[in-house]
Amino acid sequence: MSTSQIRALMTPRSIAIAGASNNIKKMGSHHLLSIINDGFKGEIYPIHPKDPVILGKKAYKTAKDIPEVPDLVILVVPSVHIPDLLEDFGKQGTRSAIIITAGFKETGEDGVILENRIKEIADTYGMRFVGPNCIGIINSEISLNTTVQPMPVKPGWLGMISQSGTYVAQTLTYLEKRGIRFSKAVSVGNEANISLTDILEYLGNDEQTRAIALYIEGLKDVRRFLDAARQISKKKPIVAQYTGGSKAGARSSLGHTGAMAGPDYLYEGLFKQAGVIRVHTVQDLYWIGWTLATQPVPKGNRVGIVTNSGGPGSAIANECEKNGLDVPVFSESLQRKLREYLEPHAPCGNPVDFTFSMDIKNFGTTVPERIIQENGADGIIFHGLMQTGIAKAKFPHLKSLLGDISMDDVIRFMEAEPRTSLTLPDIDVPILVSSFYGEEDNCIRKCLDNDIPVFTTPERAAQGMAALVQYRKITGRKDFKAGELPAPLPEASRMIDEHLKTGQKALNEFEAKKLLKMYGLPVTREFMAITEEEAVHRADELGYPVVLKGCDADILHKTEKGLVLLNLDSPKKVKKAFEAVNNASEFPIPVIVSEMITGSREFMAGMVRDNRFGSCILFGLGGVFAEVLKDTTFRLAPLSSAEAREMIADIKGAALLEETRGMPAVNKDAMASLLFRLSLVSAIHPEISEIDLNPIIIRDDKPVIVDALVAIRRIG
Amino acid sequence: MSTSQIRALMTPRSIAIAGASNNIKKMGSHHLLSIINDGFKGEIYPIHPKDPVILGKKAYKTAKDIPEVPDLVILVVPSVHIPDLLEDFGKQGTRSAIIITAGFKETGEDGVILENRIKEIADTYGMRFVGPNCIGIINSEISLNTTVQPMPVKPGWLGMISQSGTYVAQTLTYLEKRGIRFSKAVSVGNEANISLTDILEYLGNDEQTRAIALYIEGLKDVRRFLDAARQISKKKPIVAQYTGGSKAGARSSLGHTGAMAGPDYLYEGLFKQAGVIRVHTVQDLYWIGWTLATQPVPKGNRVGIVTNSGGPGSAIANECEKNGLDVPVFSESLQRKLREYLEPHAPCGNPVDFTFSMDIKNFGTTVPERIIQENGADGIIFHGLMQTGIAKAKFPHLKSLLGDISMDDVIRFMEAEPRTSLTLPDIDVPILVSSFYGEEDNCIRKCLDNDIPVFTTPERAAQGMAALVQYRKITGRKDFKAGELPAPLPEASRMIDEHLKTGQKALNEFEAKKLLKMYGLPVTREFMAITEEEAVHRADELGYPVVLKGCDADILHKTEKGLVLLNLDSPKKVKKAFEAVNNASEFPIPVIVSEMITGSREFMAGMVRDNRFGSCILFGLGGVFAEVLKDTTFRLAPLSSAEAREMIADIKGAALLEETRGMPAVNKDAMASLLFRLSLVSAIHPEISEIDLNPIIIRDDKPVIVDALVAIRRIG
Repeated sequence: MSTSQIRALMTPRSIAIAGASNNIKKMGSHHLLSIINDGFKGEIYPIHPKDPVILGKKAYKTAKDIPEVPDLVILVVPSVHIPDLLEDFGKQGTRSAIIITAGFKETGEDGVILENRIKEIADTYGMRFVGPNCIGIINSEISLNTTVQPMPVKPGWLGMISQSGTYVAQTLTYLEKRGIRFSKAVSVGNEANISLTDILEYLGNDEQTRAIALYIEGLKDVRRFLDAARQISKKKPIVAQYTGGSKAGARSSLGHTGAMAGPDYLYEGLFKQAGVIRVHTVQDLYWIGWTLATQPVPKGNRVGIVTNSGGPGSAIANECEKNGLDVPVFSESLQRKLREYLEPHAPCGNPVDFTFSMDIKNFGTTVPERIIQENGADGIIFHGLMQTGIAKAKFPHLKSLLGDISMDDVIRFMEAEPRTSLTLPDIDVPILVSSFYGEEDNCIRKCLDNDIPVFTTPERAAQGMAALVQYRKITGRKDFKAGELPAPLPEASRMIDEHLKTGQKALNEFEAKKLLKMYGLPVTREFMAITEEEAVHRADELGYPVVLKGCDADILHKTEKGLVLLNLDSPKKVKKAFEAVNNASEFPIPVIVSEMITGSREFMAGMVRDNRFGSCILFGLGGVFAEVLKDTTFRLAPLSSAEAREMIADIKGAALLEETRGMPAVNKDAMASLLFRLSLVSAIHPEISEIDLNPIIIRDDKPVIVDALVAIRRIG
Repeated sequence: MSTSQIRALMTPRSIAIAGASNNIKKMGSHHLLSIINDGFKGEIYPIHPKDPVILGKKAYKTAKDIPEVPDLVILVVPSVHIPDLLEDFGKQGTRSAIIITAGFKETGEDGVILENRIKEIADTYGMRFVGPNCIGIINSEISLNTTVQPMPVKPGWLGMISQSGTYVAQTLTYLEKRGIRFSKAVSVGNEANISLTDILEYLGNDEQTRAIALYIEGLKDVRRFLDAARQISKKKPIVAQYTGGSKAGARSSLGHTGAMAGPDYLYEGLFKQAGVIRVHTVQDLYWIGWTLATQPVPKGNRVGIVTNSGGPGSAIANECEKNGLDVPVFSESLQRKLREYLEPHAPCGNPVDFTFSMDIKNFGTTVPERIIQENGADGIIFHGLMQTGIAKAKFPHLKSLLGDISMDDVIRFMEAEPRTSLTLPDIDVPILVSSFYGEEDNCIRKCLDNDIPVFTTPERAAQGMAALVQYRKITGRKDFKAGELPAPLPEASRMIDEHLKTGQKALNEFEAKKLLKMYGLPVTREFMAITEEEAVHRADELGYPVVLKGCDADILHKTEKGLVLLNLDSPKKVKKAFEAVNNASEFPIPVIVSEMITGSREFMAGMVRDNRFGSCILFGLGGVFAEVLKDTTFRLAPLSSAEAREMIADIKGAALLEETRGMPAVNKDAMASLLFRLSLVSAIHPEISEIDLNPIIIRDDKPVIVDALVAIRRIG
């Protein structure tokens, strides 16, 4: 439903624009110039209070005066005039708007009121709008450009959604030179009505768009984003940059689009869960996005490198391997075949190094074709394809020798010479290029014209290939199906209610584990004891050694306070420990008598609720290392089992779950089940505000929750 | 001494060249064209068997025929002719050579022989040479370019030493467009005579060179490199890329320059120890190098961001903070002052966002000056300085409105208009620029002309500032002074000798610790016991609890084999343990009775000897996490105390050394002393081939070595 209205906004047959004039110092004029000059075929209706013609187009005083109901209106007038104009068009029947003007939510109180006003108007008339505080949209399929910068004539394949207008408009010239072109692009501004996620859903279904790039400073609808991206990413690559995660980044984006940023680790988890490939610079956003939009998914991770220079060859090989790609040594038979195209001592084992040979046909076509025919690699990276670029660079030195021949003559000759001109290899694997030349070189231009990404650094071409291999894995992810939520267990609900009634903010450790156990989480076997005799009795029942802990929800840092006594291997020691706990505490408290879990591998898990992200599950290294190494990963609840497995594999110390130092591999089903159930508990009981399970000790091969905190709060 | 000969090679007054001809298909001709066309003022003597004039220069048949003794000879003839030619010039008295030709060590057996031959000739005649298998040198101070690509007319400030010729020559055009220029540059090739380190020492003393960039595939003289770089880096920034660390990178570089690569972690440690700033792409090598060569060292880490767009502003702010820089909120008073130059709602708290205002004087000059005058930041990053770039980009859209005015007219008008033209701020802090425009924009050109680095990505400008702050720390490092090496302790030498005599490959644990203790390393108090009675007696002496371990140098993985019994708190348990150890072992073995060290923080340290690096010291997280997290750092022995301290702070888990979870901060003097002494032991006893101390447990606040392996081998 939503998607069809956005499709309507993106494909208008007629456009009205208010704020354009014959004065080119006015921003609105620039938006109109782009619409007129970049080839939009529909009707264009400037609105102007006085002038009858604006930039060559017949103008109208008001919405009513226009001879038809325009599909889309673009507003670039001062913010105070926006509500009336929007309403005028709404009344006429226009259903789509782009509000360029700034001065809304991002400027404070008054702006919020104004923004709410336009939201109401849109709702009243069933309108959808992009903005305010944005730079417009691009739809290259219909040659529509409503931004202030000229766009390329040729349509593109990369869908761009940006919370910064610059990345949709100001960079267009920069990108065109490098062959990168948008299918559709939207500067979403304040997202008062249409959000980034709305556009994402639309682009997910847009055939022209082959990959989607997102510049994000803060998502307003995290949950919907996850649902949408998780589905789309399986059939279409999504790449994202997030810059709101630092204090300074969050502050800056607040002043900028009024976006609400969140901690970087939550976004990191969100992207992983959604199958979104994260990048960390806008350059990568464009180049990795363009790579994913133009290149086929490789069948494996083996890279063939064809270079004219050893240095860049080594750098590409090194960076490939650092990114988990394989640069295999080619088979003897393949090397023999490649050898005939190379200088005598030139390396051909991969990288293939053409050194000073400039035979473009062998370099650019024959050799990569041979490599692929012999199944030597799953993708090819070139470095050093060049002809006219180097000729231009060297012309000043050669001038004196060439007599009357001009540089243009040389270039014309080179480009017209079929023997030397580059034909691209006919292979169905990704091809990426690294070059220190740009479109001034005919070989590079040929690559750009054929939508082969050209990176300006060897290492980044390797990273491009790594992103393709990463995407290959994403396509193989299991579909997420949200299971039906089980009903709350009455006993658990009763436990929580009782605590809330008496104003408590947390369950004590014993009750916390009891609740977790009801939902199938593996906790220590343990009992509560009030007297010394009872403690000994319970210890006898459990079998020695046991642990004694003072049990009170209000007491934190029990270990540091001497309220936890481990490894008690006799009734005598239990008695002594009981005494010690009661001495250490300010008042008499009950104790937990628990089995002693030994194991040197400790993990932690937990649940936090975030205003925007809702319930999030954490998994990480536990014990003394937890705070220091901060090796954790987050996901949004509810988790699928497959996502729980991905989560476990995602921490840096994941190898600790494998067989190591004589300890068996951890049962990953059991660990994943723990996380899955943790996410269920948080969904079933919204009154639980936080869960902290640390440590989770591995006994033999299975996790046991040794300490648990369950915090609660009244809701609704 | 060495440096003066290299200075002579780099500053010749006359040059002979063999291999140049009137045929521009010959490589040698291109080298000569660069020397002639790029402005070298000295005499040039082509050597040619037939032609009397080569590329307009009088040619000579042999070295003898030249009317003077040329300072430098450049050889670009086939490799078989190199020895004779080199000898001819040597005989005449020429003392410097550059051997461009490939086909030496990098091609196999025959090449090695040929390379040895030219080394001998050079030694015989006291010659020094660069190469073979290189692309030549650049000395912009005397307009000398012996490579195959034209170099910029203006001299530069970045010294470049590269194990890939491409990065000295093929990239020159690419770099010139971006304003990056070499002071001196050397393609070192096979380093048969002059090594990368030789050039490094020379550039360290070269006044024109303000920073040094190194492209490394493998160092041949690691120790000399460390000594040289450690000294130079304190007064002149050094930045390096290393690509030989992966399997594929090492293989590729082997085929390329015949360089010997080593593990990445050793280079990582070497660079840190030497005060070298490591980068991971060649783009960073150039840009970070140029930033360090042109910008002053900032007085602190506070960055002021001046932008015309929110997105790049957020991205810069975010990336600054991720890299440890501070993007402070400007004071109220500063904000008030900045406000008057901005649009009404534009953010001015840092980033300062000019939004659509295009007042170049305020943007580019007044605002940064105000920020620095009010001490608001220690460095400035600009994004979005532009005038003619955007005019050119937009001209197609504006053409119809501008009538007869051509784009050139517009540009000329803009550039001639003093009110709008950029003057650079007069401030003594680093200024970095990020822009999507290049030299086609007059503002960007002005920056480039004034040696202000222009980055093509906002995030990379932030990384440039981070490198400047990193260099600030390097200038504050303590000078390294190699202390005098103490004499070996006779008892230690005797212990090692005795073991070597009986063919043993390691000391047993007890002896290993005894040796370490002699040199002041903190080990467990422990005794050896052969009988059960003795074991109990020793346990009584130590005080309970104790540890019993089977002690035999040949037994590895003692814990897994049940040969380590912890926490024995009574004579009875000691007896039982003694029995258990002797049951677990195949033959009766002595036991170590040791005090029981408890503590939850475990580290490890060690020493390995590498063919190229010599003795290296390792420090890292220990215990069960050691193998999994691989959180280690390496340095070359001997260490200074300051370096030992740096090493401790260098692991990711360094926070584990601070006060945490009720445990006191680790005594860092004690830990540094442990590493320092470990490095001493390895220097004093070259027969020790490996030391492995794991775990080192922190008791209270001090490290205690709980297990130790000392491997030995016969040397010399």
